[in-house]
Amino acid sequence: MLLEQIEKENDIKKISETDYDLLAQEIRNFLIDKLSKTGGHLASNLGVVELTMAMHLTFDLPKDKIIWDVGHQSYTHKILTGRKTGFNDLRRYGGMSGFPKPKESKSDAFGTGHSSTSISAGLGYARARDLLKEDYQVVSVIGDGSLTGGMAYEAMNNASQIKSNFITVLNDNTMSISKNVGGISQHLSTLRSANLYHGIKKGVEVTLEHTPVIGEPMIRQIKKAKNSLKHLVVPKMLFEDMGLTYLGPVSGHDIKKLCHILQEAKKIQGPVLLHVLTEKGKGYEPAMKEPWKFHGIGPFCIETGEAVCKGEKKPGYGDVFGQVLCDIAAKDEKVVAITAAMEDGTGLRQFHKLFPERFFDVGIAEEHGVTFAAGLAAAGMRPVFAVYSSFLQRGYDQMIHDVALQNLPVIFAVDRGGLVGSDGETHQGIFDLSYLSSIPNMTVLSPKHKWELADMLRFAFRLDGPVAIRYPRGEAYEGYQEFRMPIELGKSEWIYKEKHIGILSVGHMFEEAVKIRDILVKKGYSVSLVNARFVKPIDQDMIREISEDHEYLFTLEENVQIGGFGSQVLCFAEKERLPIRVINMALPDQYVEHGSVDVLKRELNFDENSLANKIIDEIDHKE
Amino acid sequence: MLLEQIEKENDIKKISETDYDLLAQEIRNFLIDKLSKTGGHLASNLGVVELTMAMHLTFDLPKDKIIWDVGHQSYTHKILTGRKTGFNDLRRYGGMSGFPKPKESKSDAFGTGHSSTSISAGLGYARARDLLKEDYQVVSVIGDGSLTGGMAYEAMNNASQIKSNFITVLNDNTMSISKNVGGISQHLSTLRSANLYHGIKKGVEVTLEHTPVIGEPMIRQIKKAKNSLKHLVVPKMLFEDMGLTYLGPVSGHDIKKLCHILQEAKKIQGPVLLHVLTEKGKGYEPAMKEPWKFHGIGPFCIETGEAVCKGEKKPGYGDVFGQVLCDIAAKDEKVVAITAAMEDGTGLRQFHKLFPERFFDVGIAEEHGVTFAAGLAAAGMRPVFAVYSSFLQRGYDQMIHDVALQNLPVIFAVDRGGLVGSDGETHQGIFDLSYLSSIPNMTVLSPKHKWELADMLRFAFRLDGPVAIRYPRGEAYEGYQEFRMPIELGKSEWIYKEKHIGILSVGHMFEEAVKIRDILVKKGYSVSLVNARFVKPIDQDMIREISEDHEYLFTLEENVQIGGFGSQVLCFAEKERLPIRVINMALPDQYVEHGSVDVLKRELNFDENSLANKIIDEIDHKE
Repeated sequence: MLLEQIEKENDIKKISETDYDLLAQEIRNFLIDKLSKTGGHLASNLGVVELTMAMHLTFDLPKDKIIWDVGHQSYTHKILTGRKTGFNDLRRYGGMSGFPKPKESKSDAFGTGHSSTSISAGLGYARARDLLKEDYQVVSVIGDGSLTGGMAYEAMNNASQIKSNFITVLNDNTMSISKNVGGISQHLSTLRSANLYHGIKKGVEVTLEHTPVIGEPMIRQIKKAKNSLKHLVVPKMLFEDMGLTYLGPVSGHDIKKLCHILQEAKKIQGPVLLHVLTEKGKGYEPAMKEPWKFHGIGPFCIETGEAVCKGEKKPGYGDVFGQVLCDIAAKDEKVVAITAAMEDGTGLRQFHKLFPERFFDVGIAEEHGVTFAAGLAAAGMRPVFAVYSSFLQRGYDQMIHDVALQNLPVIFAVDRGGLVGSDGETHQGIFDLSYLSSIPNMTVLSPKHKWELADMLRFAFRLDGPVAIRYPRGEAYEGYQEFRMPIELGKSEWIYKEKHIGILSVGHMFEEAVKIRDILVKKGYSVSLVNARFVKPIDQDMIREISEDHEYLFTLEENVQIGGFGSQVLCFAEKERLPIRVINMALPDQYVEHGSVDVLKRELNFDENSLANKIIDEIDHKE
Repeated sequence: MLLEQIEKENDIKKISETDYDLLAQEIRNFLIDKLSKTGGHLASNLGVVELTMAMHLTFDLPKDKIIWDVGHQSYTHKILTGRKTGFNDLRRYGGMSGFPKPKESKSDAFGTGHSSTSISAGLGYARARDLLKEDYQVVSVIGDGSLTGGMAYEAMNNASQIKSNFITVLNDNTMSISKNVGGISQHLSTLRSANLYHGIKKGVEVTLEHTPVIGEPMIRQIKKAKNSLKHLVVPKMLFEDMGLTYLGPVSGHDIKKLCHILQEAKKIQGPVLLHVLTEKGKGYEPAMKEPWKFHGIGPFCIETGEAVCKGEKKPGYGDVFGQVLCDIAAKDEKVVAITAAMEDGTGLRQFHKLFPERFFDVGIAEEHGVTFAAGLAAAGMRPVFAVYSSFLQRGYDQMIHDVALQNLPVIFAVDRGGLVGSDGETHQGIFDLSYLSSIPNMTVLSPKHKWELADMLRFAFRLDGPVAIRYPRGEAYEGYQEFRMPIELGKSEWIYKEKHIGILSVGHMFEEAVKIRDILVKKGYSVSLVNARFVKPIDQDMIREISEDHEYLFTLEENVQIGGFGSQVLCFAEKERLPIRVINMALPDQYVEHGSVDVLKRELNFDENSLANKIIDEIDHKE
């Protein structure tokens, strides 16, 4: 096994050139084998095996800096930097992250997780290197999908000014998670088919110079424009327009060619964009056929590519959302749906199929997505933007400035709210209740079970202003089906009405709240349970009512405590001088790493037993 | 006066073609006259007089939709849509806004204020129009400065897919507020000088076809590429690369030509980008000479262009910040400064002059700005990002994901925190304490006076993690100079130590807090005053200490209550069961319109008298 010789950075340089392809094959087998057990991002990693190898052959790590955009494609990089054994507990609590983490390795120059940040971060490194008169290479590796994100352009616009070497590798696999969209994607497709250029450039130059009909001034004009001849044949050169030197396209699976062109790229003073063509899922039949299926996956059978299922899978909240939205859209032609490159993840596949004209995948472009929705709403449509909680952080200003300020009826279907599990720190949806609540005019709801999600979505369409409905990743809760009183603005819902202790739970924390209550009741406490339904506006009447015959009100939310639901409840109770003690049970002021949600909750003392104990401690403390 | 004939939408169409230039002159005189009294955005509006007239001559308002990016250039549009009289109380409380507002006029299709939103909103309108089978034109007008903002690219990437007409007018005046930066700016400069193209295009086409040396396949290749010939002479066509049809450049001061090309643009199926060249400040000598001075201005003398000053101007917080940063940077070569197109506004002019290599104007690109800073910090520099509070909303995700998650020592100098006055709703910096506090690892400070700002900035450099220092627009407070105990992490500062009532004020609210205390003391109350200094982490020891011998603790901050400083204090006091009643005095959960800060505070019952009365009411309520 060649892979046995790879124990740390630069070990790959000891491998003989003739063995490169064999090593690539070993790495693929290793990834398929390991990921079939742990799950993870497979297709993107299979696509960049040779590219990563070529980069490690060309550069000197950790001295040189490689910044992986999004970072879910950094597995080969992890293998080549001494982290093979990490794959045994990949994305598990305490184990190796699925993304680059500087605290995990010196060779991870910058942590990533969200899209389109790598050129900005790389440019920061390159500028610092020059100012500190240090000597290293900086390489940002960005996928074509990430190029739909605006901050990549902000960064390129700035990169154009640098006079020293700074390499951006464009890993073009024609996809983000689903198929790519837009003008950029079209442009890349033109570039891909433009190999012709390299062969004939010189001939054309000579020819034009000897064509008297065009005349001298014309020739001068052509020469002045540095790359005009390239444009003659490769008509679309967006990157050079932005001031970057474009190299490529080159096959991302030919290590020798890659090494050669990377050496060329190193020599260029100024910003370089190297266009590399890769195939997502390369080398594993099932992943090549359906790469979107193998983007982020659970354990699977290597033979068939089928997921290793544990029993029948219940529908997730996203599935329920997608289904109900289709029902609503069938009756209302004004309903349109927007996704930022997450058609499958947000449950919009069926909507897309049924209402192609009313479906908009804007690419990885949450800022645009929010304001585009605002424009649609201003023009009379009823847009729904289905988006992950942690990605919607990108649209915070646009929600404040374009949607809520104008009180436009945009519905935000905020998926992956709360802890998401193995994607870890960058993806936890634990700030949304805070940032959404800070926005005036915004109504914020969260459902206790799948039927309530449906009811809330229908309710949202009856409101004439912005609404966010927040729900978690994973299976939709199906208990307490009978609790389906109509949704009313700002009204919460009694589940159990007793005395002494009140629990006011937000959204999917209801499931835990029921268990917590069971524990407490078994111990002889009298415990009421209320489903908050509305995070904003809070149900003031309910809080007043509870305060009349309860001593304690415990709020329960899977969000950071600062700025969250509980703090609103407490501030109200204090303002009204209500005779009740309000205790917030929420997540601490910290980032939460990767691991299964259950394990994370236990580690954070946020599982039902810990929370029940917390309540008992609180009461005992006084009594 | 031709202007007398303009009372409402489309009245301009009654003006004779020969009188267009005269009307333009009248509009200019009107704007100079009115703005010399009220202040406002002058240079940008003088630049688009003819462009706006041409648009109103070509389109039918309010049926057709014009979306003004940023919107500070919409004054002529306001004049032409029946709002001449509004200029008497422009940007004053209850008066006309300086930005487009749908609630002000049906001809304001979409509210703006922040940069780079217009293409997204316009595309929303265009898509809605097509889906609803309506028939109107949609025109987004965006400046070249706004093109440095990434969401404009996200929008263009999406616009490329539309099959129906959608016009983006690029108002290219080679500036944002200060000089423009980056590759895009370079690109536009190339386009500007490319007039040659229109004359010779045809000739070249014929010539090439008859040049046997190039050969047939080559010709075919050229023809296939729709705009290749344009590239031969206009080598850089970024917009066409992105899938938009490019028209121009055309002079923005020639109404007939503008009307003609707008008519052409209307005919095109698909997205069009019309490149218009304008001169900022056009027609007013002082503004043409120094357009940045006449971006946003106060009252001025028409003859000289000099500001009408009321006594000597004290330095603003931004000036103090800039000065101190220069001092620090002189001793520490690792200090670098970043601005997002606000060199003057944030006080960085001197820094730029003294340390040109360490100064980075990233353009209107807050997202990139934040992550670029993160990259610089990861590579060992000490970056300071000086940015307005409301614009930093754009960098919320990047602060969470790129800076604070990695605990990188980036300093955010958050200017324009709190109420900003006449810019109104879109610019009030009233959410920052909430969004900054929600971020783990972030230290948030706010100074009571100018010396404390200096101390805090020096302190921030001693911390090894992200810090935000938040201060307001306007003159820096110079009272209580003797209160300058060294800044210590998480420690607040006693100003008056008495009993009964405690006031805990954040940052510049200190000035009001002193006045409030005076009022209360005169009425015989015993009032302590503490300067919070730290919004995060809050000073727990101080709160415990106050609770020992005070009955009330009033928190005071110019930020929305939800998620703000006061709610953190209250939650802590409640968690610790401290025997004190905490009352938050903060801004309500609403947008705050334009007007002078003093007037706004009175209207919000947030002036010293109202707040003192609130405290008295609160105490009387109980006693």
